Amino acid sequence: MTSPTDLETPAALIDMRIVDLNIARTQSFLDKAGLASRPHIKTHKLPFLAQKQIEAGATGITCQKVSEAEVMADVGIEDIFITYNILGEQKLARLHALSQRCKLSVVADNRTVVDGLSRVFSGGVSLDVLVECDTGHGRCGVQSPGDALTLAQAINEAPGLRFGGLMTYPAPDTMNQVETWLGQAKNLIGEAGIGCSVVSMGGTPNLERAAEVPSATEYRAGTYIYNDRSLIERGACRIADCALTVQATVVSRPTAERAIIDAGSKVLTSDLLGMEGYGFIPAAPEASIVALSEEHGTVNLNGSNWNPIIGDRVAIIPNHVCVVSNMLDEVHLQLSDGTIETHPVAARGCVL
Amino acid sequence: MTSPTDLETPAALIDMRIVDLNIARTQSFLDKAGLASRPHIKTHKLPFLAQKQIEAGATGITCQKVSEAEVMADVGIEDIFITYNILGEQKLARLHALSQRCKLSVVADNRTVVDGLSRVFSGGVSLDVLVECDTGHGRCGVQSPGDALTLAQAINEAPGLRFGGLMTYPAPDTMNQVETWLGQAKNLIGEAGIGCSVVSMGGTPNLERAAEVPSATEYRAGTYIYNDRSLIERGACRIADCALTVQATVVSRPTAERAIIDAGSKVLTSDLLGMEGYGFIPAAPEASIVALSEEHGTVNLNGSNWNPIIGDRVAIIPNHVCVVSNMLDEVHLQLSDGTIETHPVAARGCVL
Repeated sequence: MTSPTDLETPAALIDMRIVDLNIARTQSFLDKAGLASRPHIKTHKLPFLAQKQIEAGATGITCQKVSEAEVMADVGIEDIFITYNILGEQKLARLHALSQRCKLSVVADNRTVVDGLSRVFSGGVSLDVLVECDTGHGRCGVQSPGDALTLAQAINEAPGLRFGGLMTYPAPDTMNQVETWLGQAKNLIGEAGIGCSVVSMGGTPNLERAAEVPSATEYRAGTYIYNDRSLIERGACRIADCALTVQATVVSRPTAERAIIDAGSKVLTSDLLGMEGYGFIPAAPEASIVALSEEHGTVNLNGSNWNPIIGDRVAIIPNHVCVVSNMLDEVHLQLSDGTIETHPVAARGCVL
Repeated sequence: MTSPTDLETPAALIDMRIVDLNIARTQSFLDKAGLASRPHIKTHKLPFLAQKQIEAGATGITCQKVSEAEVMADVGIEDIFITYNILGEQKLARLHALSQRCKLSVVADNRTVVDGLSRVFSGGVSLDVLVECDTGHGRCGVQSPGDALTLAQAINEAPGLRFGGLMTYPAPDTMNQVETWLGQAKNLIGEAGIGCSVVSMGGTPNLERAAEVPSATEYRAGTYIYNDRSLIERGACRIADCALTVQATVVSRPTAERAIIDAGSKVLTSDLLGMEGYGFIPAAPEASIVALSEEHGTVNLNGSNWNPIIGDRVAIIPNHVCVVSNMLDEVHLQLSDGTIETHPVAARGCVL
């Protein structure tokens, strides 16, 4: 296949020149900042892109689920950090099996998770467990530096486990608060005679301000590899830095102001991330994707010069690109010579 | 596997007793109303449930995409209506191939679609094409009864095509308007000497008011087979009528008022359908799923008596059940004897 217009729509098209630039730029930025790079693969879910990130200098990768890590280990990725509280006999058994074939680390924010991990790992090589810290995001994580110390001690005392450091997913624009929190926790842990070699933070939205958290040693960014509308809106990237577009076809023009496209929530998802509309059309910036049903997108053309006819193709930058990768069995890569290659999204749908 | 608590979470669990009741109740209702039943398979995406619906009396099924219809034809479903404007050479070729192995009908709301269909079908047996009518929903569809007549004539004049009737997806609570619209179109088409044997309407939210559209001959309902929170909120079903629940595990209890579950937008999706919160927890009706990230659900326990410990299981009725079916590679059926059977979601991700 030689042209994006040959693709049956809806489809995700990935411009590999932009991907390569995004990987190189971010790796170079983190190198200069003295931070290890451990990209989150949830954005692409493609083993060969994880390999590219490692070839560019990443020390390893981040996964959210055991089943994602299994897919990545299958292609020989050697160093995987799973940033999730792992519970349940089946998942723990899978985690243990996985630990036989790569360097693995995980997180915990409570004793129940620590106890479960210890039960499974007490017989062999120690598993590195980082303490997840809620530095303001309000999701998982211990609630104070003192709690981080307590859990670090519990990890070090648990058979089969080793305290691996601190991990946080910061809320945007809270770098001062994050540094205060992590700095205090690191000090408390050091004063207790425990080593804390890794302090892992993350998130593409915070990337440019990473230097404001000098306690950090490692950065987990995911979305930077493709970028998306939410990052354009934050000023974290330009339209030209967005590597993945959803290719759609205009299937109906019921009225002068309404166009219907064949990309609905089954491709773009309902994620708004605080914005209005369900994606951005660079070729028609005034047009607004005002509603989605599963297979239809409703575009309001009011105020736009775009006046498509039925059958016209349109490229959309999605609000949130990570979730789009999860909707499609395959994606199409546009290589630097213009040719198109189709790849299965190997780690799609890995919720376990 | 003998118990839902053996399921690795997150997972979709389907109570087959409720499914059977929902199918029987809806078929009986439509039989009494004198309406043919043509269930939309987008809700379950499972061939064996389509077969069950036909065994219960449905005349055929509805699909939104050619690729969904292919999956259903693979198990011998004989009568398939694709309610989508089909465009593009690849899709038209697939549609033509599909027409060799089942009774197929499609819709059109414009001349471009009619011309494309005619180009592919002009050589053989005629394809039934219904005119999609925008009776107030504001998505696809011709805009007036006069436009419906014009397109019906164009279909009948197009080689290889035959006008098959009218199709609409009504907006909720607009039955009067829908009947006026369809009645006028039917009259105009009749006066022009064209037969209009099928008038197809749909939507579980409108089901109980189907009799208010006497022009209709056929009903396409989808969600009724599982039901969901949006239908509870509309008063269209009871909690006990909801067949699919998302099974999740509490993975973190960062604070007294916050629980984190392992069902995020990768299972529940971000669909709100006008409601607050991302699902309903029958065992803790005052608890609210206030935020989702991809793999985490944040539950606010403020005002709830539910005080789960880490590792506790919880069942969630999703806001919108059709989209949940699309997120998972497999679902688990709880049979009437309590045993669990796992089925692949064969028509998941069929966006083409």
